[in-house]
Amino acid sequence: VKDSFIFDVDTRAEPAGDHQFRAELSDRWAALGVAVNGGYLLATGLQALRQVVPFPHLLVASGFFLSPGSPGPARLQTEVVRTGRRMATGEVGLYQEEREVIRVLATFTDLTGGGNRTLLLNQRPNLPPPEDCIDLGADPAMPALSIVDRFEYRMPQPLGWMRGEPSGSPHMEFWMRFRDGRPADPLSLALMVDAAAPAVLEIGQFFSATIELTVHIRGVPASGWLACRAYSRHVHGGYFEEDFEIWDSSGSLVAQSRQLALSRNPSP
Amino acid sequence: VKDSFIFDVDTRAEPAGDHQFRAELSDRWAALGVAVNGGYLLATGLQALRQVVPFPHLLVASGFFLSPGSPGPARLQTEVVRTGRRMATGEVGLYQEEREVIRVLATFTDLTGGGNRTLLLNQRPNLPPPEDCIDLGADPAMPALSIVDRFEYRMPQPLGWMRGEPSGSPHMEFWMRFRDGRPADPLSLALMVDAAAPAVLEIGQFFSATIELTVHIRGVPASGWLACRAYSRHVHGGYFEEDFEIWDSSGSLVAQSRQLALSRNPSP
Repeated sequence: VKDSFIFDVDTRAEPAGDHQFRAELSDRWAALGVAVNGGYLLATGLQALRQVVPFPHLLVASGFFLSPGSPGPARLQTEVVRTGRRMATGEVGLYQEEREVIRVLATFTDLTGGGNRTLLLNQRPNLPPPEDCIDLGADPAMPALSIVDRFEYRMPQPLGWMRGEPSGSPHMEFWMRFRDGRPADPLSLALMVDAAAPAVLEIGQFFSATIELTVHIRGVPASGWLACRAYSRHVHGGYFEEDFEIWDSSGSLVAQSRQLALSRNPSP
Repeated sequence: VKDSFIFDVDTRAEPAGDHQFRAELSDRWAALGVAVNGGYLLATGLQALRQVVPFPHLLVASGFFLSPGSPGPARLQTEVVRTGRRMATGEVGLYQEEREVIRVLATFTDLTGGGNRTLLLNQRPNLPPPEDCIDLGADPAMPALSIVDRFEYRMPQPLGWMRGEPSGSPHMEFWMRFRDGRPADPLSLALMVDAAAPAVLEIGQFFSATIELTVHIRGVPASGWLACRAYSRHVHGGYFEEDFEIWDSSGSLVAQSRQLALSRNPSP
C-alpha cells in the first residue's frame, strides 16, 4: 500500500551493492526556479541511508547542496559513520553523471518513548481550520509547478507575491499535507520543510539557491493536517536564513529546520 | 603573532599527507560534563579543512558528535567535496585511536563584498556596556572549567543556576570575547557558539549531549566585544534545541547556530 503513494515511488532507492543505491529522480517535484526541489533530493538520499542504519526514525539531517539536480537516474553512495546503542549516524552522497548533487549527514534513532518532560516557549501557528482557509493550489495565480500538485497548502489569506504585491513580511503560517493522502512520517518531514514557497517572496526576493539545510525531527507526526510556520529574519550580504516549523494535529512540534540560502538576483 | 593565541595553538592541524592532518587536543577547553568542548572539536576539524579549500572564510558548518573527545592526539581526514566559483564544500572526520569523534561538513567562501540589501527582523541583545556587567569568570560560584579561562563572559545579572536557583527561563544574553585578546574571526565563531553554559541550566537541566550543531557565519566580525544570545524554546522527549546568535560591535549578526541535544539525566 505504502508504495502506491507518489512520495514513496519517487524517492525509492534500490540497493545496488557495495553500499550503493540507485534512484530515478522524478519531474513531479519541480519548485520555483529548480527542476528538482531540494527537499526531494534530501529525502531521496535519506531513503537510501535509512536502509543501512538500524533505527527507524530520522532524527537530524544536514544536507549541503552542491549542484542542481535534474530528473533522471541518480546514484547514491552511503556510509555508516557510527552505530551506537540509541542512535546511528550515516552519510550519503547523491550523484548524477558523476557530479555530486547533495551530500548529507544524518542521524537516525527510535523516536517512540523518551523523556516526558516538556517545556514549550513557542506557540503553534494560530490558524483557522483548514476548511476555512484558501486552497493555494486552486488559485489561478499560483505558478504551474509540479510540487504544488504533490501538496495541499491552505492559508488564511492569499499570498501577496502571487499578485505582484509582496506584503513586505517574510513570515508565513499555513496548513500542509500530501495531496494523495500519504501520512507524514519523520523522513517525509525532511522534504516538507523545503516544500513551500520561500518566505522571502514576500519581500520580493524571487530567486535564491539553498546552500545548506538542517532539519531536526522532534517527534513522530500524528495523522492529519500539519501546521507550518516559515520565516526569515536576517537578510544580509546576499545571504538569508529560512526557519521552518511543522506542528502536527496534536499540537506537537514535529520538525524544525533552518536553511542558509544565497540570493541569485541583484539586490534592488 | 597569530600563533601566540591559545585558540590557534590548540586548534593547529599539521598536514600529514594524503589529505590527513594531525592535531593535539588540549585540556584547556574543558566544559560542563566534557573534557573537550564540542565547539573546540568542531573548530579543530575546520582548521584542517580550511587548508584544503581555496576560500578564506567559513560560511556554514554542520558537525555530528559521535563520541566524546579527550585531550591528546587526533587524526583528521579531510575531503574536498566540491569546489565552485564562489564557494567550496569539504568534509572532515576527527579520529582519536581510530574512534571517530566528530564528522563535519562545511562550506567556505569569501565573505567580503556580497549584496548590500539588509533586512533585519530581529534585534541584537540589549545589554548594558560590558564594564557595567558582572564578570562571570570572577564569580566564585562558577565551576572550575578550563574553558572559562579562555573566554570572558559579562552579564547584567548573576546566573540563577550557579546559586542553585535556576530562573526557569532558558534564555541568556551576555558579552563574550577571547580572554587572551585574540580577535574573533569566522572560524573561531564556530567554537564560540558552543562555548557558553547551556541555556537549559536555567531550567535545571544539567547534563546533556550535543548530537548535531550547525553554524552559519553571516559576516566577518568587527573587533571588540561580541553580544550573544542563547536560548532553548522546545524541550520534549528528552531532546532540546539551543539557538545561539553572535552580534559584533558594529551591530551585525555574525553567527547563528542551532544544536540538537539529548538530556542525559532523567527528567524530573
